[in-house]
Amino acid sequence: MQNSAHEPDTERFLADLDVLRRIGAFRTGVHRPTFSPEDMEARHWLMARMAEVGLEPEMDGIGNVLGRHPGPGPKLLAGSHIESQNEAGWLDGALGVVSAVALARAGLPVDVIAFADEEGHYGSFLGSRSFLGLLDEAEIDGLANRYHGKPLRQALGKAELAGRPRLRMEEGRYKGFVEMHIEQGTTLEAAGEQIGVVTGIVAIWQYRIVFEGQQDHAGGTTMAERRDAGLAAIRLLAWLDAEFPRHCGERTVWTCGRIALSPGAASIIPGRAEVLFQLRDISMSVLERLDAVLRRGVQESNRRERCAATLEVMSQSAPALCDDGWQAALAAAAEGLAPGKWRRMPSGAGHDAQYMARVMPSAMLFVPSIGGISHHWMEDTGRGDLAMGVRVLAEGVWRFSAKSW
Amino acid sequence: MQNSAHEPDTERFLADLDVLRRIGAFRTGVHRPTFSPEDMEARHWLMARMAEVGLEPEMDGIGNVLGRHPGPGPKLLAGSHIESQNEAGWLDGALGVVSAVALARAGLPVDVIAFADEEGHYGSFLGSRSFLGLLDEAEIDGLANRYHGKPLRQALGKAELAGRPRLRMEEGRYKGFVEMHIEQGTTLEAAGEQIGVVTGIVAIWQYRIVFEGQQDHAGGTTMAERRDAGLAAIRLLAWLDAEFPRHCGERTVWTCGRIALSPGAASIIPGRAEVLFQLRDISMSVLERLDAVLRRGVQESNRRERCAATLEVMSQSAPALCDDGWQAALAAAAEGLAPGKWRRMPSGAGHDAQYMARVMPSAMLFVPSIGGISHHWMEDTGRGDLAMGVRVLAEGVWRFSAKSW
Repeated sequence: MQNSAHEPDTERFLADLDVLRRIGAFRTGVHRPTFSPEDMEARHWLMARMAEVGLEPEMDGIGNVLGRHPGPGPKLLAGSHIESQNEAGWLDGALGVVSAVALARAGLPVDVIAFADEEGHYGSFLGSRSFLGLLDEAEIDGLANRYHGKPLRQALGKAELAGRPRLRMEEGRYKGFVEMHIEQGTTLEAAGEQIGVVTGIVAIWQYRIVFEGQQDHAGGTTMAERRDAGLAAIRLLAWLDAEFPRHCGERTVWTCGRIALSPGAASIIPGRAEVLFQLRDISMSVLERLDAVLRRGVQESNRRERCAATLEVMSQSAPALCDDGWQAALAAAAEGLAPGKWRRMPSGAGHDAQYMARVMPSAMLFVPSIGGISHHWMEDTGRGDLAMGVRVLAEGVWRFSAKSW
Repeated sequence: MQNSAHEPDTERFLADLDVLRRIGAFRTGVHRPTFSPEDMEARHWLMARMAEVGLEPEMDGIGNVLGRHPGPGPKLLAGSHIESQNEAGWLDGALGVVSAVALARAGLPVDVIAFADEEGHYGSFLGSRSFLGLLDEAEIDGLANRYHGKPLRQALGKAELAGRPRLRMEEGRYKGFVEMHIEQGTTLEAAGEQIGVVTGIVAIWQYRIVFEGQQDHAGGTTMAERRDAGLAAIRLLAWLDAEFPRHCGERTVWTCGRIALSPGAASIIPGRAEVLFQLRDISMSVLERLDAVLRRGVQESNRRERCAATLEVMSQSAPALCDDGWQAALAAAAEGLAPGKWRRMPSGAGHDAQYMARVMPSAMLFVPSIGGISHHWMEDTGRGDLAMGVRVLAEGVWRFSAKSW
């Protein structure tokens, strides 16, 4: 141990997680959708914890909860989100917030933040974008809950947040941001490791591929006459399945999450097929290479098939790379506390850290997910892994802050 | 011409079609869903036409309209259906009924029939099955409109058919059945031909293939860890696409009309995929061969993939072969009237004739569909082709009846 002054109280940290878990409890998980009574109860509970560890808590007009360290000098920002997906896990988001409280309790110079609606019940990263000045009032006006349709303005009113000012990041205050999170995959568990030092958050390139053929009766149209949009889609997807492994990176993932054939009846040749296709990687050059393969596939489909395929880019985010200094500090902490039981790895999922990385050195620390399960009430992590996680986090924060100022 | 006594009045035949087309007119087609006011108007119009040509018309408790020839001796039965698909074509069904009236008008020994609900608004071939005693009251009790859900009993009541007896085929009365119909494909048009002598109505073998994998977050699950049900479905469908041409018959068709991935979101690996897959052929041995290929594909998928695939047979009908004597009579008539401009061909779509073929020698005659379009208001056939069709039909009926009794 470098310095017992920054050792976190792991028992207290686990006890805090256990208390928070009871707010909106659902089976062994939680149900705390953004701005629900349970979510608001959790935010107020968090403000009390912040005050307890000597931070000055505030909740703003979008639901962000910020606990400011009252001392002088530069600070780090640490946190995540506190709402959950519907009927989901007790650690996703909560772990990052409660571990940040543990850092403050250990005397480390951190502000703690819970960004609102990272889970996207109403929008995309509303809290972190608001904090960075990337969310305007007009966008808030237009948003509604994706599950039940309630307008965001109405939800903010019901949560007694309407009219409150929105907090903006104080220029010059922060030397960096850190977010602890469950892995949401099985890489660490499969390797018997306890810590993932995140190298960056992958970019997501999302496409819609539409095939336009000719709707016809399945009985009256010979195979030679058909312009089957569904078959054209299957052929392209099978080609991509065979071709992508020749061009992808080690951790690239690609996913076809939806295929919609119109009209979708047993005896009707599909006149239209719509496919959602997604790439994720941390490397822009890998993404660009696979984008080119995808475009070649669509071009080849249009040469070969009697159905026109069109490729529409729905979104192309940039990867958010984690800061080298942060990675070195967390890696040294991991090697000191869990020698040989950690690795560097990208995050395949999006996190608030990807926005923070735009404006300050940012980092993420992963702990194992049992069975890789997340966004489900069965989500869990061993208590030993949780404790090791907060210890590595605190040690890494101490090392990073010692080097940074 | 063999005998001018059986020559149909083609002008009158076309005029009748034009009048019927105005009942429930929709753009250049018709909208006469089963038991709608427009459909009932058409049935009453048909009864008047039957009476006009000397038949004794009757409408029964399921909406079948039968016009009995009053003379002595054996008869042929000719007809089709008179309701339409929603916003569909003017000839599908109507052509077979109006051409049958033309046969009676030409003095041929036919009863004319319009079978109710061939188009399946409420059930499957209700009229022809009822006529053969294959539709019981309990089935009628349970049926409802597939589009708007109205119970069949309620529709029959509104159409003033409730309580009427249902007509059963009179044993020993008929020597055969014939149905004229549009091709609903482009084979005749593409070959510049006017007449199709139907060899049989294909069997339809309908399957549901379900793939069970593991739903996971697309960002947190590496390609190696995935159990992607959608990808397993794509691989099997692509394999079938490559394999079937090595085993199929000349006119076999196979169709995947629906692929449903669950939950169907861009960032979620599908945990379940459901595929509708259909085969149509006139040969049982071809169907059995392709069924075996399909089963081999599913077996191979289960060997290779980490998602369990299960194959469920939804229906397996038998092909309905057209009578050789009928085919010979119609072929001779076609060669006499349209030399070189006709062919023998199977019907890929289902028709009332497939039920009649169970109990008597049956036949179908096709005329070209412009652009192969059917089940759409743009459905059409050239007037010259319609006139040639009814002339070949009458000549064929005359030849068949001359040989049969």
